[in-house]
Amino acid sequence: MSQVLVLNGPNLNLLGTREPERYGSVRLADIEAQLAEQAEQSGVSIDFFQSNSEGALIDRVQAAPAEGCQIAIINPGGYSHTSVALRDAFLGVALPLIEIHVSNIYQREPFRHHSYFSDISVGTLLGFGPAGYSMALTAAIARIKQS
Amino acid sequence: MSQVLVLNGPNLNLLGTREPERYGSVRLADIEAQLAEQAEQSGVSIDFFQSNSEGALIDRVQAAPAEGCQIAIINPGGYSHTSVALRDAFLGVALPLIEIHVSNIYQREPFRHHSYFSDISVGTLLGFGPAGYSMALTAAIARIKQS
Amino acid sequence: MSQVLVLNGPNLNLLGTREPERYGSVRLADIEAQLAEQAEQSGVSIDFFQSNSEGALIDRVQAAPAEGCQIAIINPGGYSHTSVALRDAFLGVALPLIEIHVSNIYQREPFRHHSYFSDISVGTLLGFGPAGYSMALTAAIARIKQS
Amino acid sequence: MSQVLVLNGPNLNLLGTREPERYGSVRLADIEAQLAEQAEQSGVSIDFFQSNSEGALIDRVQAAPAEGCQIAIINPGGYSHTSVALRDAFLGVALPLIEIHVSNIYQREPFRHHSYFSDISVGTLLGFGPAGYSMALTAAIARIKQS
Amino acid sequence: MSQVLVLNGPNLNLLGTREPERYGSVRLADIEAQLAEQAEQSGVSIDFFQSNSEGALIDRVQAAPAEGCQIAIINPGGYSHTSVALRDAFLGVALPLIEIHVSNIYQREPFRHHSYFSDISVGTLLGFGPAGYSMALTAAIARIKQS
Amino acid sequence: MSQVLVLNGPNLNLLGTREPERYGSVRLADIEAQLAEQAEQSGVSIDFFQSNSEGALIDRVQAAPAEGCQIAIINPGGYSHTSVALRDAFLGVALPLIEIHVSNIYQREPFRHHSYFSDISVGTLLGFGPAGYSMALTAAIARIKQS
Amino acid sequence: MSQVLVLNGPNLNLLGTREPERYGSVRLADIEAQLAEQAEQSGVSIDFFQSNSEGALIDRVQAAPAEGCQIAIINPGGYSHTSVALRDAFLGVALPLIEIHVSNIYQREPFRHHSYFSDISVGTLLGFGPAGYSMALTAAIARIKQS
Amino acid sequence: MSQVLVLNGPNLNLLGTREPERYGSVRLADIEAQLAEQAEQSGVSIDFFQSNSEGALIDRVQAAPAEGCQIAIINPGGYSHTSVALRDAFLGVALPLIEIHVSNIYQREPFRHHSYFSDISVGTLLGFGPAGYSMALTAAIARIKQS
Amino acid sequence: MSQVLVLNGPNLNLLGTREPERYGSVRLADIEAQLAEQAEQSGVSIDFFQSNSEGALIDRVQAAPAEGCQIAIINPGGYSHTSVALRDAFLGVALPLIEIHVSNIYQREPFRHHSYFSDISVGTLLGFGPAGYSMALTAAIARIKQS
Amino acid sequence: MSQVLVLNGPNLNLLGTREPERYGSVRLADIEAQLAEQAEQSGVSIDFFQSNSEGALIDRVQAAPAEGCQIAIINPGGYSHTSVALRDAFLGVALPLIEIHVSNIYQREPFRHHSYFSDISVGTLLGFGPAGYSMALTAAIARIKQS
Amino acid sequence: MSQVLVLNGPNLNLLGTREPERYGSVRLADIEAQLAEQAEQSGVSIDFFQSNSEGALIDRVQAAPAEGCQIAIINPGGYSHTSVALRDAFLGVALPLIEIHVSNIYQREPFRHHSYFSDISVGTLLGFGPAGYSMALTAAIARIKQS
Amino acid sequence: MSQVLVLNGPNLNLLGTREPERYGSVRLADIEAQLAEQAEQSGVSIDFFQSNSEGALIDRVQAAPAEGCQIAIINPGGYSHTSVALRDAFLGVALPLIEIHVSNIYQREPFRHHSYFSDISVGTLLGFGPAGYSMALTAAIARIKQS
Repeated sequence: MSQVLVLNGPNLNLLGTREPERYGSVRLADIEAQLAEQAEQSGVSIDFFQSNSEGALIDRVQAAPAEGCQIAIINPGGYSHTSVALRDAFLGVALPLIEIHVSNIYQREPFRHHSYFSDISVGTLLGFGPAGYSMALTAAIARIKQS
Repeated sequence: MSQVLVLNGPNLNLLGTREPERYGSVRLADIEAQLAEQAEQSGVSIDFFQSNSEGALIDRVQAAPAEGCQIAIINPGGYSHTSVALRDAFLGVALPLIEIHVSNIYQREPFRHHSYFSDISVGTLLGFGPAGYSMALTAAIARIKQS
Repeated sequence: MSQVLVLNGPNLNLLGTREPERYGSVRLADIEAQLAEQAEQSGVSIDFFQSNSEGALIDRVQAAPAEGCQIAIINPGGYSHTSVALRDAFLGVALPLIEIHVSNIYQREPFRHHSYFSDISVGTLLGFGPAGYSMALTAAIARIKQS
Repeated sequence: MSQVLVLNGPNLNLLGTREPERYGSVRLADIEAQLAEQAEQSGVSIDFFQSNSEGALIDRVQAAPAEGCQIAIINPGGYSHTSVALRDAFLGVALPLIEIHVSNIYQREPFRHHSYFSDISVGTLLGFGPAGYSMALTAAIARIKQS
Repeated sequence: MSQVLVLNGPNLNLLGTREPERYGSVRLADIEAQLAEQAEQSGVSIDFFQSNSEGALIDRVQAAPAEGCQIAIINPGGYSHTSVALRDAFLGVALPLIEIHVSNIYQREPFRHHSYFSDISVGTLLGFGPAGYSMALTAAIARIKQS
Repeated sequence: MSQVLVLNGPNLNLLGTREPERYGSVRLADIEAQLAEQAEQSGVSIDFFQSNSEGALIDRVQAAPAEGCQIAIINPGGYSHTSVALRDAFLGVALPLIEIHVSNIYQREPFRHHSYFSDISVGTLLGFGPAGYSMALTAAIARIKQS
Repeated sequence: MSQVLVLNGPNLNLLGTREPERYGSVRLADIEAQLAEQAEQSGVSIDFFQSNSEGALIDRVQAAPAEGCQIAIINPGGYSHTSVALRDAFLGVALPLIEIHVSNIYQREPFRHHSYFSDISVGTLLGFGPAGYSMALTAAIARIKQS
Repeated sequence: MSQVLVLNGPNLNLLGTREPERYGSVRLADIEAQLAEQAEQSGVSIDFFQSNSEGALIDRVQAAPAEGCQIAIINPGGYSHTSVALRDAFLGVALPLIEIHVSNIYQREPFRHHSYFSDISVGTLLGFGPAGYSMALTAAIARIKQS
Repeated sequence: MSQVLVLNGPNLNLLGTREPERYGSVRLADIEAQLAEQAEQSGVSIDFFQSNSEGALIDRVQAAPAEGCQIAIINPGGYSHTSVALRDAFLGVALPLIEIHVSNIYQREPFRHHSYFSDISVGTLLGFGPAGYSMALTAAIARIKQS
Repeated sequence: MSQVLVLNGPNLNLLGTREPERYGSVRLADIEAQLAEQAEQSGVSIDFFQSNSEGALIDRVQAAPAEGCQIAIINPGGYSHTSVALRDAFLGVALPLIEIHVSNIYQREPFRHHSYFSDISVGTLLGFGPAGYSMALTAAIARIKQS
Repeated sequence: MSQVLVLNGPNLNLLGTREPERYGSVRLADIEAQLAEQAEQSGVSIDFFQSNSEGALIDRVQAAPAEGCQIAIINPGGYSHTSVALRDAFLGVALPLIEIHVSNIYQREPFRHHSYFSDISVGTLLGFGPAGYSMALTAAIARIKQS
Repeated sequence: MSQVLVLNGPNLNLLGTREPERYGSVRLADIEAQLAEQAEQSGVSIDFFQSNSEGALIDRVQAAPAEGCQIAIINPGGYSHTSVALRDAFLGVALPLIEIHVSNIYQREPFRHHSYFSDISVGTLLGFGPAGYSMALTAAIARIKQS
């Protein structure tokens, strides 16, 4: 039973190993460890999931509410720009989400400027590097506490 | 050996539990039961498959003709608008298809107005709710009987 | 007093005589006869109207509710793609409609891919040939029985 | 029984009275008289029809082949740019057509640059003023003689 | 012999009966009665015409100047967005026009944001409800008095 | 305390001095004097403001409701096509507005065909010259009297 | 000194040898011979030029008026869709032109639907096959006789 | 001498008073007070500026570096979508910026989906309500501490 | 009384201090001093104005003709791409203008490729660095001497 | 440890069995056998992978460099046109790729004309049928030998 | 009598001297020498032609079949993106072609992403540097041997 | 050995004879004579070339650097909008260029608003009439002196 689900889409398992000038050298495991600590300090339960598979991500989203999940933080990676199906999973189970991108997607290729998740998110943040996950968790916790 | 294959794409396992004002409260299992009965009454064999995974859906389509499948009824869900690969699977094994959408996709977001399946389908129907599956099966059976 | 009105737009009087490889050889009169029989068996009254004139079609739609019409089945033909005025007639008298196309319009010229009727229809079906009218009537009757 | 049908769409009854700097001062009746004489000299029968009504023009096209018409010359006027239904009438009865415009439509508003008739015509000519009708008839007669 | 012609296009005969939250409950006959009174007080003759037929509207426009008409007030309804032919009728007989829409077309579907009449009108007004007709007549009368 | 605020945007201080063939020779002061008289006759208070500065116009709109203003008449001039900020000011203080343009913007450059104010206005009128202000005031007064 | 100049652009030297189902089997030399005869019968002098080189065609157009040329008939071939420079040559020496295409360019690739010559031509004709040249010459001669 | 400059563009002085369902009921002064406290706790100096005037905002940005400002937090309001000049001010003085929007701009009109500031920002966040300012300040402080 | 007015829009007060690799290190004051000298040598009076405020620039343009100004040289900066209002000021007082950009705007972001001033300018020049101002003044003086 | 990885995307397991007029009758296993032989002759190690699953393909790409892979040859099939995530996998692990398509994608539907892989490939080849794989391997081997 | 014609369009005479980081330092003469050797080893005759002139390239293509040419390898250079006329030359004489680009055109300006030759080529390859010519010749020889 | 090469594209040999209201009555020879004098006074060598042939212009550009040319001034005429090949010639030999247009291309047809030369030019100027050549030479000489 976790109140917050942190989802990372395709290639985010490479964080910290890939294009460090763009993504920094902090690994996904480091980020998850830090988020776990931040959640614990706030008394909020948290779970993590990363997959390169669109179907596996959809399965995970569908399962979340039944596990007590109240909000997801998602970095959809490349699926941000192409996955209507993953978007529909959030709508289908009415799970609120916060969208995060590590890099500033507006400084990259034009096809990265549109996300299927922004207009259904509680909020979106981008460009803050790995620190963005922590910012997103702060917002998620605040939302849980308010509800 | 099934003559008709009913395919449901991502999030359609949620039918009846999700956004009931849009999709109604009939569950996918109920629909499949009803279709099975309708097929049986017409002396036609039928099979069902649902997956959130694009690859699994492609695998299933590829396998169908060898199992004697003559026509598919597919609700591609979110993959309607994004999956060239699933479209190609039908073309690759030359399996005729009928496309169905439960809701009226023209009353929703613009990105739902284009489907990669409509121009390769025998026919397309949308907006009739869960009853649309039965209408599609009627058409599929008529086609099988004619051939 | 007819509960169902079947409207056919321009050139559909040519059905069965025109481009048989695309539209089949069933004539409009044959279709109407079959629909009349299907309606009678369901205990539903039905009326038919075909015109090449946009104004005449609008007049007919406007008159329908006062005659007890509960739903229209319409194949708008070429007006599908060009007639805001005919669309407005349905909105103006709040008459529900089911849209049907005999051929698969997505396999034809791009200007046939947009219809002014799809987003205001109860449901739309296309590509099933003359049999589509009967499918539409099945849906119309079900709707009448439910109401 | 006329081999050639000369159709004029909306507002062409005003020819010779309207915007003479664009259309000249020759009236439609004058043009028809001249075409009748030209047809007679070639031993070809000819008929004329003008209407402001899209439906009436469609009706006339549908009736033509049964009257022995082998080819139509049409100035669709404003319907050039908007009438899929009139286009479909020609396709529906498989009547060949020659498209004519009196003025040079490419020197006018952008919405006049597209015609629904050009890609289904035997040939199209525009900008030659009233004399264009005679040029079109010359081509129509040549086609009749060849067949 | 009427100096002002008030034209209403398709479905405007439904005014006051249709979508009252958008169009109000004043009927077309009421509006025409009020306009007749306003015209009479200004010593200006006025005539009215409503039709659902594009061809009939074109015929009426063509006939107007010969009847002494100096200016038309037109609510083209659905033909606003689709009728090049009706536009051409005004150009063909050089009849000035004032364009009116009862509802605010910019709060509706995008295809209603373009009108074939605005750029050839003396002036256009929209969104003022039935009162807009009276405003238009005020402007028409002022123009007649000035000329 | 004024019930009506008449706002004129950039360059409208030049009215009557600038491009008289397009805007006429009536000066803004003349228009304001006439509107003041019209308002007084209707027992409605009125105020006027013109500025070339987007910020000053926004400030004025924000201040209006607190001064008892019930409706604004605005000719946004060049800001019609570019100012989201001025649009937002009306939304921010929930001040109803009537939009007016002196010239027919649809006969001018394409970038003048879109206004950020039309879809949030009570009504829009254009092309009637300086007289349009009086028409707008008539509508504003009627609205005040009704409320 | 030739009054009419017949210009043929790139690949038209292949006429009659190339894609006979599209262009027929009449060779360019045959067409020119027939046009020469038609011109002679009308007492009009005529000259011919074909080149695959854009620059050579421009040179020829520039030289024409000084040689007494009053009008050109041009089939610009592939340069129809790409040559602003050849268009400018006609404008630069103010030489009137009639544009002809042998095939119906609207039945071919979309990039063939736009011509840089249509809006500066006296008239344009297309789809009439080799006979189109003779039709164009008829129009050219008529124009010369009128002037 | 302030290290952080918090800029608010047009209409943000209305925060808390305007459209509370979209922006909440926290006033700008409350937000600024909270940010001042947060900055003080981190030992960082902070300054605030709000204006409805594009020019005044540009002046303020230009002046900031000379005052020791290391980073700006900006909610550009309506200027987000229209002000190249304000964008240029940041580039001109090389002042890093964090962009914030209170509401989720992707759930609003399409013209709000593009911002001239996102691709030049350190990071962007939107949709988190007034709390977004605090999140932005956290990021700004972290950046100052790192440098 | 100055015959030439040199206007500089937003952020051009930063010239010489900002992005020297793009704009060089010559300051605006240096440029103005050089232009003053060049004007004096030609016996032409000159005045200078820079502002970050769109409204202030409009005010300045409106005032210029009354001060004897015959032509303006303007670098509109960021307002090049967004200000219809500033464009209208030039049209409103019929003041001829020469447009200059210091950098080559075609080597920068696409939104800088369109200027609202180019099609109303006497001439436009860009990319020549600060020297462009002197080139523009040469052209302005030549024009004054010719008139 | 393989230096070259040959990846085939969705439906390419059907090669040789599907649409032989477009893809030929050579099966994927035949191609792989031939490539293995070609690689062996060049002293280069090679590995093969085909999957219909986007996630499985991403996993395979991510794993390749650690296995000593220096370059991939990929026929992304339908994912060519839709998979940002697969593209990102190559960027994420900095694995060079050669893109191949068996058929000429420019002779097919417009949505096949854009590939997310072309601009990040060493080189791309298409239309050469199964022989294209061998051509790609030749290029891959040359690249390995040069490095 | 040459079976293969290698055509190089504008500026390819500069190969090896121009932008070596993009095109390498191998000169066109070197490439041609290598291709001649490769052809000789395969017992295939080969010819070469380079021109900066569109017309000269068209002339050369037209002449090829009569010289026994069975296939062309063409690097159309800048004409790739602009020459309908050169495209038409291949269609006109029914000469098969293989298209090659030395650099990866998808990493360059957007106008280089469309080629008028790709959809009429046997196959296209790009990005392999000068080695691409040899790959193309391998494919050309294979095709000649098969026929 | 000339340091400056002045290139004029198609139809510019007509300067002074063509459309004098647009281009003035100064002939190209006059302009060249004046430029020669200006160059001589500055101690800079200069050469001139005009051609209607794209290929000839490319040849000339390719040859220039070897002749000591340091910069070109080019009026590409109609090739401005269509010639990637001529653009590539400049890039291929790394010859700097200044682009000039005699008329204001932004007051003409939309297809003249884009030039393939502007983004690779040192600077561009347009609209100054024949005097623009002298302004361009001034800039070219300054650049030569600086280097």
